[in-house]
Amino acid sequence: MEERLFTRITASAAIFLILICNVTSTATAQAVDVTRVISSPKFKAAQAFIDKDHDRFVQEIIQLTEIPAPPFKEQMRGRAYLEMLRQHGLTNVEMDAEGNVMGIRKGLGTGPLVAIAAHLDTVFPEGTNVKVKRMGTMLSAPGVGDDSRGLAVLLAMLRAMDNAKIQTASDILFVGDVGEEGPGDLRGMKYLFQTGPYKDKIKMFVSLDPAGPGNDITNGAVGSRRYRATFKGPGGHSYGAFGIVNPAFALGNAISKFAKITVPFTPRTTFNVGLIGGGTSVNSIPYEAWMEVDLRSESSDELKKLEDAFIRIMREAADDENSVRSTAQGRIEVETKLIGDRPSGAISITAPIVQTAAAVMKALGMTPVYSNSSTDANIPISMGIPAITLDSGGRGGRPHALDEWIDVEKTASAKGTSIALGILLSLAGMIP
Amino acid sequence: MEERLFTRITASAAIFLILICNVTSTATAQAVDVTRVISSPKFKAAQAFIDKDHDRFVQEIIQLTEIPAPPFKEQMRGRAYLEMLRQHGLTNVEMDAEGNVMGIRKGLGTGPLVAIAAHLDTVFPEGTNVKVKRMGTMLSAPGVGDDSRGLAVLLAMLRAMDNAKIQTASDILFVGDVGEEGPGDLRGMKYLFQTGPYKDKIKMFVSLDPAGPGNDITNGAVGSRRYRATFKGPGGHSYGAFGIVNPAFALGNAISKFAKITVPFTPRTTFNVGLIGGGTSVNSIPYEAWMEVDLRSESSDELKKLEDAFIRIMREAADDENSVRSTAQGRIEVETKLIGDRPSGAISITAPIVQTAAAVMKALGMTPVYSNSSTDANIPISMGIPAITLDSGGRGGRPHALDEWIDVEKTASAKGTSIALGILLSLAGMIP
Repeated sequence: MEERLFTRITASAAIFLILICNVTSTATAQAVDVTRVISSPKFKAAQAFIDKDHDRFVQEIIQLTEIPAPPFKEQMRGRAYLEMLRQHGLTNVEMDAEGNVMGIRKGLGTGPLVAIAAHLDTVFPEGTNVKVKRMGTMLSAPGVGDDSRGLAVLLAMLRAMDNAKIQTASDILFVGDVGEEGPGDLRGMKYLFQTGPYKDKIKMFVSLDPAGPGNDITNGAVGSRRYRATFKGPGGHSYGAFGIVNPAFALGNAISKFAKITVPFTPRTTFNVGLIGGGTSVNSIPYEAWMEVDLRSESSDELKKLEDAFIRIMREAADDENSVRSTAQGRIEVETKLIGDRPSGAISITAPIVQTAAAVMKALGMTPVYSNSSTDANIPISMGIPAITLDSGGRGGRPHALDEWIDVEKTASAKGTSIALGILLSLAGMIP
Repeated sequence: MEERLFTRITASAAIFLILICNVTSTATAQAVDVTRVISSPKFKAAQAFIDKDHDRFVQEIIQLTEIPAPPFKEQMRGRAYLEMLRQHGLTNVEMDAEGNVMGIRKGLGTGPLVAIAAHLDTVFPEGTNVKVKRMGTMLSAPGVGDDSRGLAVLLAMLRAMDNAKIQTASDILFVGDVGEEGPGDLRGMKYLFQTGPYKDKIKMFVSLDPAGPGNDITNGAVGSRRYRATFKGPGGHSYGAFGIVNPAFALGNAISKFAKITVPFTPRTTFNVGLIGGGTSVNSIPYEAWMEVDLRSESSDELKKLEDAFIRIMREAADDENSVRSTAQGRIEVETKLIGDRPSGAISITAPIVQTAAAVMKALGMTPVYSNSSTDANIPISMGIPAITLDSGGRGGRPHALDEWIDVEKTASAKGTSIALGILLSLAGMIP
């Protein structure tokens, strides 16, 4: 996932909102469909199969996690996943020009195209040890839950549907997408929805990301702005040129000021220095020092305030360095370059796609929670296409950290997969 | 060069010191030898040849500069230089286990072994564009003066000696050495003097580094201590885990405080942040952020004070971060690791090697200046072996910067090479 689920309102509050909005008819209509799906013998057969299939599901999480997939280098995992989609009997299996891999599970052709996705990429750079450590039902490895588990759930759903001989009205597009994390800037989704062969064709979208019990519905897309700030100076010899401006000092000062910014807790607003670098050797004054920062807010006004403060601090840090050290060899210049821009937006909790998801969760004994987040769904949401992100079952923690973990305990895992399948079949119009 | 020449006392002050020390007899004895060398027809023939050979000298500076030689990756330049030494008729041509390349110009075997060196390595990382740009007599490229010019001067001296049929009492060891810069930590010299085949055999040492008119004698070795400071934390998601401690924030605060340290101008004391790095992606809180710093002083007391302040600031920065953000996922820990330790020391300006160098400079119309610096000579100086570093002729500037330059104007270049040759032949006992 690009961002952790955080701001939640409970299902009861959501229902209250539905009532005061007088849009219960849609919600009810969806709920009926859902009951028909969940209570059907075919769905129960699929659920039973998910249980039996559990060991293979776990084995595939491990297999996918252990194929490195750094940002912009998802090809190896993509090719492996493409082959897995092919082996699961999909048609039109392909890798698009951006690197997304996908295939169609044909329906009767009487419903709108539904897409379901998990992302191939991780945040971890080349060379990261991606070997999965296992202890009982716990798996630990970089990317294991974000989003290898989601990829494996898609395969588990396909096997369950086939085993239970389930047909749908809609075609369903299964996607392993690229560029969800960080510098990828949702390039996989942008290509899928705005350029590739399925442009204008996908009418509903669900993504699975990351691990979680299966009761989270991300219907709000948190916007983000990302910058690379680079301080440049003349550089020189650490001893001979001592006293001239140093870009690393300017950067340090910039980070120190930036870290002191205060942001509101609500609307949730955050900032991060995620990457830093610069210099050529310990005994040279660097000619360049840089950082990459992530600015986010649920509120576009707060995001703009944060962004303005960030840019002002960068300029101040350059000015400070130019005023306290010698500029005889040259001045510190700072460049702030926008490297990421994710659109914000929201799907109403009264919208059919959200109501369907909530109804399936309730039918399977879960209490839905609603979130704002930055996920693959940001792109369709920003385009007005009904889209949500769901968690992929079980438990998990420490995403984006080297000690990321998930719990693949069977009951909670199977429940998560069943919920995702129930939602998908409800959206795609399962044939009784 | 590892460090720019800086603290200088004039030759007249040096002579005053000699007089008050009552050690003029040694100085005079050397001066006589020097006159005999400089005024000899063979030396004049060598000087005339250096003039004629100028274009080849310039061509070899360019050739050597354009072979990348990052720290610890000097092999390609080393192999090329080894071949050049072999083609110049040296014996015992070899690359030692550390990567130094060297060969002997045999003397009559009646004098102590003299070594002369220039360093192969640059400060610039792999991938740096090392193509030499030329405009008139100006050459610009990373490493062109520090120390490609020194390497080329060694070859020019060899050709001049051969052409003028010069013999010496001593064998002379010509060395292209590794690890002079930054992280190399003088590993080439340490191996040459403390482990390799010439251990305990070299009785005098001269290094050429960097460009300069030929009147600088580095007889004082400036000590340095270098550290890698690493801030480690739990890491996590930039949005979901916002509010936990961030190693990049701790590092920024550390740099900001470190940059405010005040150091005395005399004894000259300097500090630098030369390299920084950390993080895995823009949307992850880093689990690690680090910097490499260079601390130097002409005074070991001042160096110790600076080092203590640095270590204290690193600890404070970790404590600050742990106090202003959440440590629920883990605390910031800081590690300060010593990565470089160059010994200090000095050869008295009354010592024969220094007096010989000064006398040659004066005989060739230059006024010597004396410097403290950190060069290859630090190692023999710290071991009590007579050693100096000389500049390699001409003019130059911006060492360790991408726009490093030298002037290869013929008169000043030939003068620099002649001075170095005059000093070498005086030390090695030229046969009349």
